[in-house]
Amino acid sequence: MSIALPEAVRIREVGPRDGFQNEPEVIPTADKVRLIDALARTGIQRLELTSFVRADVIPQLADAREVLAAVDIPEGVERSVLVPNERGLEAALEHREQIDGVSVFLSASETHNKKNVNRTVAESLDALGRVIPAAVGAGFHCTAVIATSFGCPYEGVVEEDRVLQLAAALAAAGATELGFGDTTGMANPAQVARFFARAAVDLPGVELTAHFHNTRGQGLANAVAALQVGCTSFESSFGELGGCPVPKGATGNIATEDLVSMFEEMGVATGVSLPALLDATRDVAGVLGRPLGSHTLVAGPIDWHGA
Amino acid sequence: MSIALPEAVRIREVGPRDGFQNEPEVIPTADKVRLIDALARTGIQRLELTSFVRADVIPQLADAREVLAAVDIPEGVERSVLVPNERGLEAALEHREQIDGVSVFLSASETHNKKNVNRTVAESLDALGRVIPAAVGAGFHCTAVIATSFGCPYEGVVEEDRVLQLAAALAAAGATELGFGDTTGMANPAQVARFFARAAVDLPGVELTAHFHNTRGQGLANAVAALQVGCTSFESSFGELGGCPVPKGATGNIATEDLVSMFEEMGVATGVSLPALLDATRDVAGVLGRPLGSHTLVAGPIDWHGA
Repeated sequence: MSIALPEAVRIREVGPRDGFQNEPEVIPTADKVRLIDALARTGIQRLELTSFVRADVIPQLADAREVLAAVDIPEGVERSVLVPNERGLEAALEHREQIDGVSVFLSASETHNKKNVNRTVAESLDALGRVIPAAVGAGFHCTAVIATSFGCPYEGVVEEDRVLQLAAALAAAGATELGFGDTTGMANPAQVARFFARAAVDLPGVELTAHFHNTRGQGLANAVAALQVGCTSFESSFGELGGCPVPKGATGNIATEDLVSMFEEMGVATGVSLPALLDATRDVAGVLGRPLGSHTLVAGPIDWHGA
Repeated sequence: MSIALPEAVRIREVGPRDGFQNEPEVIPTADKVRLIDALARTGIQRLELTSFVRADVIPQLADAREVLAAVDIPEGVERSVLVPNERGLEAALEHREQIDGVSVFLSASETHNKKNVNRTVAESLDALGRVIPAAVGAGFHCTAVIATSFGCPYEGVVEEDRVLQLAAALAAAGATELGFGDTTGMANPAQVARFFARAAVDLPGVELTAHFHNTRGQGLANAVAALQVGCTSFESSFGELGGCPVPKGATGNIATEDLVSMFEEMGVATGVSLPALLDATRDVAGVLGRPLGSHTLVAGPIDWHGA
């Protein structure tokens, strides 16, 4: 920590998409809308609201249009949706007034990409070569996320060179932001610091975003490692919702409230009100009716007694 | 992570004391002995076996003598017990052949010390001024632990100067190792890095040990922060057992298996076999019959597919 830390970070809350999508039960639309509206008033800068996916594949997000029509997001909060393909982008374009950005994705490893979207990485890259320029041309902020950037549960090691080459191709296609996902929590802080330090050099002029999972408890340690080498953009999920079904039973994304608590304690501004965020997390815990992985939800904010 | 990391660390497994003590049900002695013997064969360097405390205050550890008589610890593993006072040390001295070291403790904050041991900090320091030399004189390795080193749940801020002054007094009394406990998970990585960097300068010639709790999910991030400024000695608890009953419901110590997984992935040797450790954690999870906070227990070790 001898290096000066960034003064502030931006966080994209992905719980309403990544979290809700991974719940076995479909969350009622009215609950989603209330939770999203609450999240949008925590001071968070960015919200991933839903995804345009096939309702038969992901029934949890079949109400994407209803959600977009019903939510009330304050000015200044970036509203995005995940779009898996060209059809998803077409749907997003129909809701242009309700969306500021789209996120697209592929996996760095062939096996994960095949299992996730039934395409080769080359096929995904080819499709994104059309989706990204179309999205950017329509005025969308476009985030291209590379899943399994730090390791693949099926293939093991994912070469840094490969991830950075994919990232360069996505940037060349016009992506305004690149996300690097540690999809099954295989990254370690030394690897993360090396990666983001190199990515900042190799990928100038494009925003770099870190997306960590807390699969083996190391999510916040990885966030600090990225922060230390200058990364100022993060994705996380309230309540530690979401994540990846591999490995079975594993916890999900890093919890937004744990990330906010830690960064704020470190003197790194997040813009987020932790009490307001915890209200939203308590609400979703009630909706889901089960204990969540979030630590700060249980322990509460640190009480410095007026210090 | 631009600084070279230490090549290796030492970990003291405190689950058999800190963990077992905090369970509502008393764990049968035979289970304790089997678990301790398994932990002692994981490659861990140090084990805190039990504590000599009043049986009416902590019935969970009333079998301290039986445990010490029954365990079979391989040569080279440091065996220690926690002793709260002079009577505890007397008991430890009666078991000199079965113990290599003792840990003593006080809190940096008055309120926490009062609630924990019903003494002022000055009274605790005065007593430790007798206990520590007696322990060292008997040939014990003596670890003096300062609880609430990074914040107090009752008083809030704990001044770094105060903690370092207490540490200097304990070192002057003869402590061979100083432990700094983040008893209720209030530390953040920036604070931890500043603290251990300064402690290394202020407290030359004495081993410095980091003891973090995962109360707000930041335990491993704090461990990396300490590591980065040269700390090579850590305490943790298998299964994330133990910790502090404040705040209510909060998780405990950092899980040894999560710490080992992360450090080994970073290229920092722990000496611990993660599969062997996970066997012990699975065993204790079965004994306790409840889900544990350990992440790697659920997710399993990272599988690099032969890499």
